[in-house]
Amino acid sequence: MENTNVKPAKGKLGIMVVGCGAVATTFMTGVLMTRKGLTKPIGSMTQYDKIRVGRGSDKKYLHYKDIVPLADLKDIVFGTWDVYPQNAYQATVYAEVLKAKDIEPVREELESIKPLKAAFDKNYAKRLDGDNVKQCKTRWDMVEQLREDIRQFKETHGCERVVVIWAASTEIYVPYDERHHKTLAMLEAAMQVDDREHIAPSMCYAYAALKEGCPFIMGAPNTTVDIPAMWELAEKTRMPIAGKDFKTGQTLVKSGFAPIIKTRNLGLAGWFSTNILGNRDGLVLDEPANFHTKEVSKLSTLETICKADDQPDLYGDIYHKVRINYYPPRNDNKEGWDNIDIFGWMGYPMQIKINFLCRDSILAAPLLLDLSLLSDLAARAGRYGIQRFLSFFLKSPMHDYTREEEPVNNLFEQYTMLKNAIREMGGYEADEEID
Amino acid sequence: MENTNVKPAKGKLGIMVVGCGAVATTFMTGVLMTRKGLTKPIGSMTQYDKIRVGRGSDKKYLHYKDIVPLADLKDIVFGTWDVYPQNAYQATVYAEVLKAKDIEPVREELESIKPLKAAFDKNYAKRLDGDNVKQCKTRWDMVEQLREDIRQFKETHGCERVVVIWAASTEIYVPYDERHHKTLAMLEAAMQVDDREHIAPSMCYAYAALKEGCPFIMGAPNTTVDIPAMWELAEKTRMPIAGKDFKTGQTLVKSGFAPIIKTRNLGLAGWFSTNILGNRDGLVLDEPANFHTKEVSKLSTLETICKADDQPDLYGDIYHKVRINYYPPRNDNKEGWDNIDIFGWMGYPMQIKINFLCRDSILAAPLLLDLSLLSDLAARAGRYGIQRFLSFFLKSPMHDYTREEEPVNNLFEQYTMLKNAIREMGGYEADEEID
Amino acid sequence: MENTNVKPAKGKLGIMVVGCGAVATTFMTGVLMTRKGLTKPIGSMTQYDKIRVGRGSDKKYLHYKDIVPLADLKDIVFGTWDVYPQNAYQATVYAEVLKAKDIEPVREELESIKPLKAAFDKNYAKRLDGDNVKQCKTRWDMVEQLREDIRQFKETHGCERVVVIWAASTEIYVPYDERHHKTLAMLEAAMQVDDREHIAPSMCYAYAALKEGCPFIMGAPNTTVDIPAMWELAEKTRMPIAGKDFKTGQTLVKSGFAPIIKTRNLGLAGWFSTNILGNRDGLVLDEPANFHTKEVSKLSTLETICKADDQPDLYGDIYHKVRINYYPPRNDNKEGWDNIDIFGWMGYPMQIKINFLCRDSILAAPLLLDLSLLSDLAARAGRYGIQRFLSFFLKSPMHDYTREEEPVNNLFEQYTMLKNAIREMGGYEADEEID
Amino acid sequence: MENTNVKPAKGKLGIMVVGCGAVATTFMTGVLMTRKGLTKPIGSMTQYDKIRVGRGSDKKYLHYKDIVPLADLKDIVFGTWDVYPQNAYQATVYAEVLKAKDIEPVREELESIKPLKAAFDKNYAKRLDGDNVKQCKTRWDMVEQLREDIRQFKETHGCERVVVIWAASTEIYVPYDERHHKTLAMLEAAMQVDDREHIAPSMCYAYAALKEGCPFIMGAPNTTVDIPAMWELAEKTRMPIAGKDFKTGQTLVKSGFAPIIKTRNLGLAGWFSTNILGNRDGLVLDEPANFHTKEVSKLSTLETICKADDQPDLYGDIYHKVRINYYPPRNDNKEGWDNIDIFGWMGYPMQIKINFLCRDSILAAPLLLDLSLLSDLAARAGRYGIQRFLSFFLKSPMHDYTREEEPVNNLFEQYTMLKNAIREMGGYEADEEID
Repeated sequence: MENTNVKPAKGKLGIMVVGCGAVATTFMTGVLMTRKGLTKPIGSMTQYDKIRVGRGSDKKYLHYKDIVPLADLKDIVFGTWDVYPQNAYQATVYAEVLKAKDIEPVREELESIKPLKAAFDKNYAKRLDGDNVKQCKTRWDMVEQLREDIRQFKETHGCERVVVIWAASTEIYVPYDERHHKTLAMLEAAMQVDDREHIAPSMCYAYAALKEGCPFIMGAPNTTVDIPAMWELAEKTRMPIAGKDFKTGQTLVKSGFAPIIKTRNLGLAGWFSTNILGNRDGLVLDEPANFHTKEVSKLSTLETICKADDQPDLYGDIYHKVRINYYPPRNDNKEGWDNIDIFGWMGYPMQIKINFLCRDSILAAPLLLDLSLLSDLAARAGRYGIQRFLSFFLKSPMHDYTREEEPVNNLFEQYTMLKNAIREMGGYEADEEID
Repeated sequence: MENTNVKPAKGKLGIMVVGCGAVATTFMTGVLMTRKGLTKPIGSMTQYDKIRVGRGSDKKYLHYKDIVPLADLKDIVFGTWDVYPQNAYQATVYAEVLKAKDIEPVREELESIKPLKAAFDKNYAKRLDGDNVKQCKTRWDMVEQLREDIRQFKETHGCERVVVIWAASTEIYVPYDERHHKTLAMLEAAMQVDDREHIAPSMCYAYAALKEGCPFIMGAPNTTVDIPAMWELAEKTRMPIAGKDFKTGQTLVKSGFAPIIKTRNLGLAGWFSTNILGNRDGLVLDEPANFHTKEVSKLSTLETICKADDQPDLYGDIYHKVRINYYPPRNDNKEGWDNIDIFGWMGYPMQIKINFLCRDSILAAPLLLDLSLLSDLAARAGRYGIQRFLSFFLKSPMHDYTREEEPVNNLFEQYTMLKNAIREMGGYEADEEID
Repeated sequence: MENTNVKPAKGKLGIMVVGCGAVATTFMTGVLMTRKGLTKPIGSMTQYDKIRVGRGSDKKYLHYKDIVPLADLKDIVFGTWDVYPQNAYQATVYAEVLKAKDIEPVREELESIKPLKAAFDKNYAKRLDGDNVKQCKTRWDMVEQLREDIRQFKETHGCERVVVIWAASTEIYVPYDERHHKTLAMLEAAMQVDDREHIAPSMCYAYAALKEGCPFIMGAPNTTVDIPAMWELAEKTRMPIAGKDFKTGQTLVKSGFAPIIKTRNLGLAGWFSTNILGNRDGLVLDEPANFHTKEVSKLSTLETICKADDQPDLYGDIYHKVRINYYPPRNDNKEGWDNIDIFGWMGYPMQIKINFLCRDSILAAPLLLDLSLLSDLAARAGRYGIQRFLSFFLKSPMHDYTREEEPVNNLFEQYTMLKNAIREMGGYEADEEID
Repeated sequence: MENTNVKPAKGKLGIMVVGCGAVATTFMTGVLMTRKGLTKPIGSMTQYDKIRVGRGSDKKYLHYKDIVPLADLKDIVFGTWDVYPQNAYQATVYAEVLKAKDIEPVREELESIKPLKAAFDKNYAKRLDGDNVKQCKTRWDMVEQLREDIRQFKETHGCERVVVIWAASTEIYVPYDERHHKTLAMLEAAMQVDDREHIAPSMCYAYAALKEGCPFIMGAPNTTVDIPAMWELAEKTRMPIAGKDFKTGQTLVKSGFAPIIKTRNLGLAGWFSTNILGNRDGLVLDEPANFHTKEVSKLSTLETICKADDQPDLYGDIYHKVRINYYPPRNDNKEGWDNIDIFGWMGYPMQIKINFLCRDSILAAPLLLDLSLLSDLAARAGRYGIQRFLSFFLKSPMHDYTREEEPVNNLFEQYTMLKNAIREMGGYEADEEID
C-alpha cells in the first residue's frame, strides 16, 4: 500500500441501512460473525479478491486491502431504518435465511441494532404496512428528520464517517421528469412544496445522506439517484453515489453468460427469464406498478452486451422478456429459469436453459459490504458523483444519459473497470482499455 | 491492414480434413453455401468478430481480415480422408445435421469431394469399421502414404498452401511415454519399427502434415501433438500446431461460466457434468478406453480457472465429475446437463443447473474454419510450434508441460490472447496482460 | 363387435373445423397421410388404444373399432372456416409444424380444402385480423349463415353425418350470465337482439351445429358450451357436446403427475407453471383478456385431484400459479416449465421440475381425430348432452355445475371413464367405480 | 372394521431394522416424534390414505385402520443391527437429514436404540468398514446368531410380533444360481458349508427372520428373497416376504410418469435417467459390482408398462439407460434428472425433462412404516409368501419368475392391487381387474 494517496481509514465507519429485512440482517449478521471468526464472508471482493498490479516481471497479485486503505470490519457500526420496529435479531430470525447456529453467537449485538422510524409513503409500496414510521409534514420535513437521524447516529456511536445504503423495497416507478428532477434547485423546490408524485421517499434518504457528507447507494431498482439533480448534489457535496439494484441472481448470470455468446459470435434469437420468489420483495413486485420499476432495470442488460448495431446478423432481432412471479413456497430462495435461444453455423437453432436455485440475501449480503467499503474508499480518494467502477455490483449501472454515456453491463468489463479503479487509487497504472 | 508484416494469402488454400463425418461435412457445406451467398457462417470469429486495435482516441474496431491477411473463403479447396468411401454429399445427408434445402444447392461440389483411404487401426477405435482403409506395412509406411496423398492433392488442385485438421474420432488414450515420445528421433524410430502401441494413426497424420509443410490441428482429445517429439518437428519444419479437442458444447459453457463464479469470489463445492449424445462420436466414447481420453481432456478445465492455491476457502475442495453417455435418440443433438454447487456468504449453498441442447456439428463447424484460416495465417506470419493464441477454440489447450507452462482455460483470457495475437500480427500493440 | 347396439357408421363423415391454423392443418394432413399409409397416427386412442373388455378368464384386450362401430378414416371429409382465405395446403406450409416430406404427398387434397368465410368479431380476439369474414347483421344472422354453410357442405360432399369442432383462437372471457345464458329462450333472444357482449361468435357456431344435428366440440378454453342454454339445446336436438380446451402439453402432464403425488400421500405446497410459446395462439393469449379465459381453464385441474377437504394436512394450502408467455423464437414448439413443491415425512420439502419441450399441434391433432370420431359414435349411440367420457381429452372438462357435479381431472380416472363408455357402447359391462 | 377376519393387532410390535443409517433413523425419529404429536407422518399410506370400500350408494372412503386391524404407532418398539456402534441418536445427527428441532425432543428414546453387531462380509460391500460386526464361523453360524438376536429382542421388549426390514446397503450382485438357490435344502446346505459366494449376509437375515416367524422385507436391490429357496421357507413358516428396493425418487416418478405416456398412446423413443447422490448409499453404488445390482433393479420398470409386444409402433424400440453417480456435495439430497424422448402424431419428437430434487430418506421413511405395518397385517391375515400387494412400495417388485409371472410396475395398477388387498382383508369385495 506504499503508493496510494487515499486518506487512511481512521476511526469508526457507520453503515446505515435503509430497510432491516432479509438482505440487511444477513449482511449485518455475517459481518458480526466474521469479526468473531465464526464464519467466512464468501463472495465479498474486498475480503477475498486478489488482482494484478504492475506488469510483466513486476506484476503481483494482491488483496484490495494491500493496495488501498479499506475500512476494517472491526471498525464498522450498524444503523438502520425500517417500517417495522423489530430489532435486528428479531428481524434476522423472522427472515428465515440463516440457521440458528449462525445467528445466536451474535444475538446481543444484533438486539442492540434497533430500527429508526422509517421515512415512508404507502403509495410507493402498497403491499407493505408497518407503523414504525415518521410523521412528516412535507418531503422537506422528511429530509430534515433523516438528516437529524444521521447526525445523532454519528455522534452516539462516535463514527468518523457514515455510508447510507438502501436495502429496502422497490418503490413504484418514478420516471425522470425534467421539470422536477433536472436541477438541484428544482428538486429542492419540489420537496419544499411537498410534491409527493415526483419525490419518492428514497430521494429524501439520498438527499439527506449527501447533505450530511455520506456516500449513498441505491440497492433497489428505484430511480432515486438516476436524476441529474442528485448528480449535482453529489458533485456539490463531493460525495460518491452508486446504483442501482444489487446484481444478485438472474442478472448476475445474464451479465456473465451473454458475454460467452457474444465472445463466440453466436447468434441470439431470444432470452426468456422468469423468476419465482416468495419473500417480501416478491410480494411487493407482484404489484404491477412496482414490477415495472424492476422490469426496466432488468431489461437493459442484454442490449449493451449483444449490440444490434455492431452485429446485425447476430443480434438484430433479439426477443427479450423478463417475468417475476410471487410464489410463497420458496420464501427467500429466489429461483431463476432462463431460456436462451441461440443460433450457430448456417443459422441452426440451439437452446440453453439455466436454472438458478439461489438465495437472494446470501448473494446480496457481500454486495452491501463491498459497496459500503468501496464507496467509503472513493470518498476518501476524492472521487465523487457517479461511481462507474461500482457497476460490477449493480443490475442497472448508473451512467450519465444526458451525455449519451453508455452503461457497461458485461460482467467482465465491469470487473476490469473495478480493478482499474483499485489500481489507480492504489497508485498503480490502470489497463488502458477494458475490452 | 497497412501495418502488417505477414505474407499475403495468395493462391488457393487446401483444407484437408481427417474424417468426413458430421463435423467435417457441416463445415464444408457451410463454407460452400456461404460462398454462394446462401447462408451465413454464424459463430466464426474470422468472419464476424471485430476487435479493438489501437488505444484511447486512436482505437477502432475492425474485422480480422481488415487487420491481417486472411485467406478468402473463395480460395478454399477441400480434401478429406475417411474409413467410409461415401462422398461428402452422401456423408452430409447421412449425418442428418442439415436440412435438404441447406445441402442441395451445393450438391455437385460436395459430390466431387471423395475421401482418400484412411490411415486406420481398429485397435484405436473398436466400434468403428469401414473398409476405405490403407494397407500399411508399418507406421512409417503409413506416414509415407499420407505424405504422398498431400503432395498429390496439392498438385491436383493447384494449392499454394495446405492445412491438415483432424475431425475424426477419439482414439484410445495414449499417455505420454518418455522413451518414445520425447524426441523426434525416438518418434521416428518407433514409426520405423512399427510400434503400434505408442504410435497412434493420428500421429502419422500429424507427422506427414508437418513434414509436408502444413499446419496440423487436432480437433479430438487425442494426445497426438501433445508430445515433445511433435513440438520438435514443428520447430524444425517451422509449422504451427494446435490442439486439442474442439471446444463445443459443455466445455465451452464451463470455460465461460466458471469465470463468473470466480470473478464474484463465490465458492465452488462441486460441478457435475453429464452429456447425452447419439452420433458416431458418442458410440466411440461409449467404449471406456476412448472415453478416458475425453475425460482427461474435459476435467482439466476447472482447476486452472478456480484455483485451490489462490483461494483455498473458495476452491480448496471442488468435486468435479464428467460423464458422457451414448444415447441414440438424440443423434447429433448433443445435450449437456451441468449441476454446479456453489456457496456464498457464510457458506450457504446454492445450485445452478445448465441444460444445453446443442448441436455438436453446428458448434464445431466454425471452429474448423477459424482454426484452418488462423493456422494458415500463423504459418505465413512465421509463427511455429504450439499456437497458444488458438486456445480459445480448444477444450484442452496445448502448453509446454515440460516447462510447467500452465494452460489458459478461462474463455475470456483465451479471447484476450487471441485478440493480442491478431493485433500483433496486424502490426498493432497487444495488451500487455490478459487478466 | 357382436354385442353393440350402436348404429353402424355408414357413409361419409364430414368434420368441419373452426379455424384452419396449425392445429387443424396438422390434424388434416396427418389423417390424409395415414390414409395413404405414409405416416402413423401416433397418440390417437381410436387408432391405437386397446382396452380390456370382459373379466377374469373372459377378458380380452381389443381396439376400440373392434368393440364399437367407429367411422373409418377413409370415410372422412374435411371442411373448415377461417378468417384467412388460404387453402389448407398453404396454411399447413405457413404453420411450419410439418416437414415438406410429410405434406407434399397430399398437397392436392389439402389444396382442395378452402376455408369458408369465418363468423368473426374482432372484439373477441383483438390481435387477429383477416378478411375472410362473413358480413352479419346480427348474431342471429351469423347463426343462419353458419347453418347454411353446414347444409351446403353436407350436400356438396354427400356426407351422412357432420361433426363441428372448434380449433380456433381463445376468445375473451365470457362469464356465465344467468340472464342470457340460462335457458335456450334467453340465448335465442340475445342472438336476435344482437347482444354482442353476451353472445360470442363461438356460440353461434355451437348453436348452428346443434341445430343442424351435428355434435359440437370446443377445443379452446371458451365458455361457449359451458352454459345451461346450450345443454338445453343439445338435449333438444339429441346431440353430444364436449369441451373445453384440448388437453395438450402442460395440463396433460399436470393431470397425470398430480395423481402420483396424491397416490403416495405426499404433501403439495405449491405448483408454478409457466409456458412459452410463439404461435398465433400465443399472440392471442398475450392479451390479458384472452389469457384470463385460459387461466380459469388451467387453474381448475389441481384442486379436484389433490383435495383440501379430504387431506387438509397434505393439500390444505396449495399455492397454484399459471403463466403463459408469448415468445416468438419458439413458434409452435410450446415449452412448459413446472415447479412442483412437495413435502414428505415430517414436512420436509422437496422439488420436482418438469420441462416439457412439446409441439402444440402434434399433441392436439390426435385429439381432434378422437373427439370427432367419438362424438360421432356417441350420437349414433343415442348419447346426448354433456359427454363426460370425453373429459380425458380436455383441459377443463364440462360438468353440470348447476347440480354441483364435480369435474374429473385425474387423467387415470378420466381414462377409466373413457374405457367404461366404450365398454358400455360395445355391450360389455363397465367397471362400477373409477377409483 | 366390522367385516374383517384378520387377527387383531394385540401387544407390542417389534420392528428390527437392518442398518441404522439415514433411512432407518429418519424412520424411527419420525415415528417417535409423531407419537408425541410433534410432527406428521406425511407420505405414509397407513396413516393418511383413504380408499373406497363398497360400491354405488354403499361406497365410502375409509382410512386403512378403519378397514383392517393395523398395529398402532404407540405399540412399536425399534431394534437395529449396524456395522457402526453409534446409537440411533448419534446416527441420526450424523446423517444430517433432520434438523435439530426435529430430533432433540426424542433424543432419549433414540439413544436407547443401540445397534446389535451386524452380520457382515466386506466382500459384499467393499467401501464400507465398521467394526460392530459378528464373528461367524460359517454362514450357518451367522444365521444362528441372528436368530438368537431376534429371540432376545422379543423377550427383552415383550414383543408379541416382530418384523425384520432391510434398510442397509446394496450388496454386490448375486445372480440366481439354480444349484444353490432353488430349494430350501440347497440353501441350507450352502449355509452349512459356508459357501460365501452364493450366500450373501442379507440371506442370513432373511432366513433367520422367517425361521423366527417374522415377516422379512428387502429394502435394497439385493436379490436376497428373490430366490425359490426363500419362497419355500416363507411358505413353510407361513410368513410374508416382500421386496425389493424401496421405491423412492426416480423410479417412483418413472412408474408414475410412464403410465401418462402409455395412457395417451404416445410413442417412446428413449428414457435416460441419471442420479447424483452423496450419501453412504451413493458411495457404495459407485462400486461397479454394487451398481450392477441396482441397475438391474431400476431397468425393469419401463418394459412392463410400455410393452413392445402390445404396441410395436409406439414401444418397439425404446433406448433405456440408467446411471447413478456418487457426488458428495449433495449428501442425502438425491437428485434425479430424467430425459424422456417421446414422439407423437406422424412421429414428431418431443422431450420431457424431469428434475427431482428429492431427499432419499424422507421418501423412504414412510415406506418402512407402511411395509412393516402391512406385512405384520398380512401375517395376521394368514397371507404368506410373496406379497404382490406391496409392489406399490418397491422398485422391482417380487414375482414368481419360475411361473413366468409378470411384475406390475405401473404405479396406479400397483395402487389398485394395494387397495384390493386392504379391501379383501377388511371383508369387502375387491375390484375384479386392475386396468
